[in-house]
Amino acid sequence: MESVDARLATVEAKDEIRELTARYCHAVVDGDADRIVSLFCDDGIFRSHTFAAEGHEALAEFYKGGVGSKTHKPFVQNHVIEIEDDTHARGRCSVEIRVLQDGTAYTQAGHYLDRYRCVDGSWRFAERHYIRYHNVPWQEGWVK
Amino acid sequence: MESVDARLATVEAKDEIRELTARYCHAVVDGDADRIVSLFCDDGIFRSHTFAAEGHEALAEFYKGGVGSKTHKPFVQNHVIEIEDDTHARGRCSVEIRVLQDGTAYTQAGHYLDRYRCVDGSWRFAERHYIRYHNVPWQEGWVK
Amino acid sequence: MESVDARLATVEAKDEIRELTARYCHAVVDGDADRIVSLFCDDGIFRSHTFAAEGHEALAEFYKGGVGSKTHKPFVQNHVIEIEDDTHARGRCSVEIRVLQDGTAYTQAGHYLDRYRCVDGSWRFAERHYIRYHNVPWQEGWVK
Repeated sequence: MESVDARLATVEAKDEIRELTARYCHAVVDGDADRIVSLFCDDGIFRSHTFAAEGHEALAEFYKGGVGSKTHKPFVQNHVIEIEDDTHARGRCSVEIRVLQDGTAYTQAGHYLDRYRCVDGSWRFAERHYIRYHNVPWQEGWVK
Repeated sequence: MESVDARLATVEAKDEIRELTARYCHAVVDGDADRIVSLFCDDGIFRSHTFAAEGHEALAEFYKGGVGSKTHKPFVQNHVIEIEDDTHARGRCSVEIRVLQDGTAYTQAGHYLDRYRCVDGSWRFAERHYIRYHNVPWQEGWVK
Repeated sequence: MESVDARLATVEAKDEIRELTARYCHAVVDGDADRIVSLFCDDGIFRSHTFAAEGHEALAEFYKGGVGSKTHKPFVQNHVIEIEDDTHARGRCSVEIRVLQDGTAYTQAGHYLDRYRCVDGSWRFAERHYIRYHNVPWQEGWVK
């Protein structure tokens, strides 16, 4: 049986990690690339099916291009977190994103496969791997 | 280092506040204005960019007009909560709302800037400030 | 006043139950009917307005038919959980579902009325009752 202190630390870590993913969404909506990047470890990675950015400099370039126009509105849900040890965890969470692309409303759905690491007492993204189901014009909907 | 009791109280408070925002959504879906109002402090405030209602009487009037037709379906996500002291907290959470307006399906997205206060042992809304990104016909989507 | 141990157990149970509903969504997206069924008690029930499946065999048949084509993407939100005792709980959570029906994009919204039971130390669904608000072609939106 785990000690009360260890059990409580697990609950607190999961709470902080859930809020980490929420803070990410808020920073995206606010178009604040620096704030997004600060949520990643120094060697943190964002990865999609076509792309990867590793480290704060590459992440800053990626997010400045992506969120500067402030049209992304991500909504994160369905979060499962596995605490591996005091400083490592993994998670999967679903996401829906409203965004404008060339002036047209698009909707995306997918999920993130995340690795988290606790650095100097704060949980951050070690890696976000975005698995996208579709990215389609809102008025059309998805076809597969 | 905080005591186990204080740490646990923080975790419990955040859990209760997250459920407060979920209870709000359920009461809106159910069209139950009295139940919505009961989630606010006596001097609680709902505020949007054009409007504010303060106190239970004004809130009841506002919500009875708004949710009586039972077409609002709010979905709250991305919740970050900061506990300020034993009886005060702040939060930000994202929201998507499905609603009928004059028989037409509309979609809204935005976020709430909330202040919470613990009254007689229960966390309630001291203020909900609704920051709306868009409110558009579902079939059209948003343009900014 | 409850003991620290009892308070912590409640927080842990709610965390596990929230993740149970998230695991359900992930298993649905992955089209893994066996994994969905494993989240239910042996005598677990899925119920909608027209239908009920009870027990693992009936649930497996239902979910194999439903999710095999991997087009369902459920997003669960607004979760309120009431712990009744050490092994029983109830909850209500909202859901939005993206799905293809005959090749056409549909959107659903509704909520689950859940009963949970803790079996051999793991929380599972004793019953999911799906209250559906609408199930409509994405391009058309809802009319009531």
